[in-house]
Amino acid sequence: MTGPINELEQRIIDSMPAIERWFRLEWMEHTPPFYSSVDIRNSGFKLAPVDTNLFPGNWNNLTDQMLPLAVQATMAAIEKICPEARNLLIIPENHNRNPSYLMNLAQLQRIFKMAGLNARLGSISPDIKKPTELKLPNGETVLLEPVIRTKRRIGLKYFDPCTILLNNDLSAGAPGILEELYEQYLLPPLHAGWSVRRKSRHFQSYEEVAKRFGKLLGIDHWLINPLFAKVEQLDFNEGTGLDNLATQVDALLTKVRRKYKEYGIKEKPFAIVKADNGTYGMGVMTVRDAKELDDLTKKARNKMGIIKDGLSVQDFIIQEGVQTSERMNDAVAEPVVYTLDRYVVGGFYRMHPERGIDENLNAPGSSYVPLAFAHSTHMPQPGMHPGASAPNRFYMYGVIARLAMLAASYELEATNPDAEVYD
Amino acid sequence: MTGPINELEQRIIDSMPAIERWFRLEWMEHTPPFYSSVDIRNSGFKLAPVDTNLFPGNWNNLTDQMLPLAVQATMAAIEKICPEARNLLIIPENHNRNPSYLMNLAQLQRIFKMAGLNARLGSISPDIKKPTELKLPNGETVLLEPVIRTKRRIGLKYFDPCTILLNNDLSAGAPGILEELYEQYLLPPLHAGWSVRRKSRHFQSYEEVAKRFGKLLGIDHWLINPLFAKVEQLDFNEGTGLDNLATQVDALLTKVRRKYKEYGIKEKPFAIVKADNGTYGMGVMTVRDAKELDDLTKKARNKMGIIKDGLSVQDFIIQEGVQTSERMNDAVAEPVVYTLDRYVVGGFYRMHPERGIDENLNAPGSSYVPLAFAHSTHMPQPGMHPGASAPNRFYMYGVIARLAMLAASYELEATNPDAEVYD
Repeated sequence: MTGPINELEQRIIDSMPAIERWFRLEWMEHTPPFYSSVDIRNSGFKLAPVDTNLFPGNWNNLTDQMLPLAVQATMAAIEKICPEARNLLIIPENHNRNPSYLMNLAQLQRIFKMAGLNARLGSISPDIKKPTELKLPNGETVLLEPVIRTKRRIGLKYFDPCTILLNNDLSAGAPGILEELYEQYLLPPLHAGWSVRRKSRHFQSYEEVAKRFGKLLGIDHWLINPLFAKVEQLDFNEGTGLDNLATQVDALLTKVRRKYKEYGIKEKPFAIVKADNGTYGMGVMTVRDAKELDDLTKKARNKMGIIKDGLSVQDFIIQEGVQTSERMNDAVAEPVVYTLDRYVVGGFYRMHPERGIDENLNAPGSSYVPLAFAHSTHMPQPGMHPGASAPNRFYMYGVIARLAMLAASYELEATNPDAEVYD
Repeated sequence: MTGPINELEQRIIDSMPAIERWFRLEWMEHTPPFYSSVDIRNSGFKLAPVDTNLFPGNWNNLTDQMLPLAVQATMAAIEKICPEARNLLIIPENHNRNPSYLMNLAQLQRIFKMAGLNARLGSISPDIKKPTELKLPNGETVLLEPVIRTKRRIGLKYFDPCTILLNNDLSAGAPGILEELYEQYLLPPLHAGWSVRRKSRHFQSYEEVAKRFGKLLGIDHWLINPLFAKVEQLDFNEGTGLDNLATQVDALLTKVRRKYKEYGIKEKPFAIVKADNGTYGMGVMTVRDAKELDDLTKKARNKMGIIKDGLSVQDFIIQEGVQTSERMNDAVAEPVVYTLDRYVVGGFYRMHPERGIDENLNAPGSSYVPLAFAHSTHMPQPGMHPGASAPNRFYMYGVIARLAMLAASYELEATNPDAEVYD
């Protein structure tokens, strides 16, 4: 890799103790999300998180070498949240029986067991009426059991958990069964679900974090911060609001062009339009010119209007596109970094042989090849030539992921419906 | 491996969540030592810690795979002790310029840097009058700088640390330069030094811990607890007190024989006599029969009376010998487990090709071959046949090491000269 990112890497490696201290001080004031995965894109001149998932799946893609870190981080988290706990209930997605997703659940269960909690899987899906054993590709099984609600708590038959861990992003809204659980810890909280959460709110917090971090390092925060704008009341099917969208895309691309000029970047800027509460790569579109929006096909419009669980979308975020210049086995790749408590515990590359460098790689209907980071994110090698050290690059990715996680923490504080207001 | 230890292993693996919870609750009441290394011996019928070092060296023997765990545990420790800290001062041993020891210092420095502290080496040796660069076998260097004392603090020139980490066991007593430092964190505290600490006090605490843990698991605590007795005012050179020693050795061996009979163990019991404040394997003797004490050679007596830094010894501990039945490349081996904060972060085997299964392997003048644990201590595999799974054995070793670390925590609380007494 070449380009301004190498300078950024150098700056980050040189400032390692200052950066770690900065995070320590931040975590004195803010609570990290229990867990997260952060999609990162590295264009060689810009490095930015593009998605911060607070209900991360794919834990099965972490290598065995990374697991001890995840276990240790879980121990640290439990110690703070509920040291006396014995039982933890994991609530998986309702309808996902994809073998890879089930492997993810088995892995999460394993991590919690090793950290010292009896962890079981409680489904809130109406399909699960009795304990249901599901086979995994490796011959093992996972047991999904129906969640039982009592007046003040939820649990399984003969299993009363102290903590509930959501691995279900609640796209369809928080179900009644999870509401008013004042006696149990619910992690992450309900307002982290995609029925409440907005990407634009997250990136507003991320911008705040990136500015402060940029100041600490003495760098232009644009290098790590994708520009964005929010567009509301847009109806792709009816065509309502498309003019406004085109205007805003144009304005954003103009800003990006100005930055490209400032840095002597020859690439063509592009924007990503996506559902403000979308997940799973549904409702995502790459726009290289606002004019493209004039002649969208009916199919394209249809695709943009619907996300997971058939929900229709009206609010969108336009985000500066960050192309990915990482390649793994000739395929376009983007790093995904996993955090638990305040710690980076691992990551892998998401790859998509059929997609371009300016397209969303987290796309439905197409597989991606996980590739564990060959080196830990904890092992920077000061003194190495910038860009030449994989551990240094991974450390940098771990820093960016933690900035996104910190932004999620700001975001959840700001959107907490139960927060006490001291105005 | 065969024998009762396999049953213990099974019990420990089955009770994993209960054990982890038990430790969590203990750490709510007690503070773990900042770091430690624990020598463990596994005889196949008994598993016990034989030495708990609160100033561990040999960090360089941990593999690169274990380092991220050490870094993460250090982050957790710093967060609790001094989140605002920028600088940490490591105080090494005064006269040790052994290349392996210097590599150990470089490794510690590396761990702290990665955890986000500027870590420098400050010597309190009168030999170090100016910054002194020392070469490491790998071509790198470490810089030893003279410690500067001001009225209330210590530091280096232009370097004011918030935390002082001792990697010097203070065998010769706490030097004045380290006393009355009320503004800085001194870890471990001065009373953890070998001029104050007593092995018998440690094993008194360990017995308490082992009894409670035995109760939790429903096992005879003798399986993990070496019997011991304390002998004071013994002068090997003059021969004073040797009668008393022989009587006590005999009494201890009788107790051990009774336990061996109870468990149908055919081995011949033995006892270890060692300086109650000894380190570095000096002043250690294996006794198979109390009669051996009648005809000790002058040389043997001399050897027992002197430990590190030429200090003479009067207080001894007699400890039930635990033979080691672990072998690595045909050499007698014993596991050494490393902890940081409350976490097990790694370990290796200490080997000694020339020594027997009932002898002390941590012996001066003879090298040992470090062998990193092939598997993490965090990755037990429930369901494996007892004794057949290295990860399960290592998890068990990690549990025993944490029991010893917990005992050290009890011990340091009980011996704290500044403790407030509420009697």
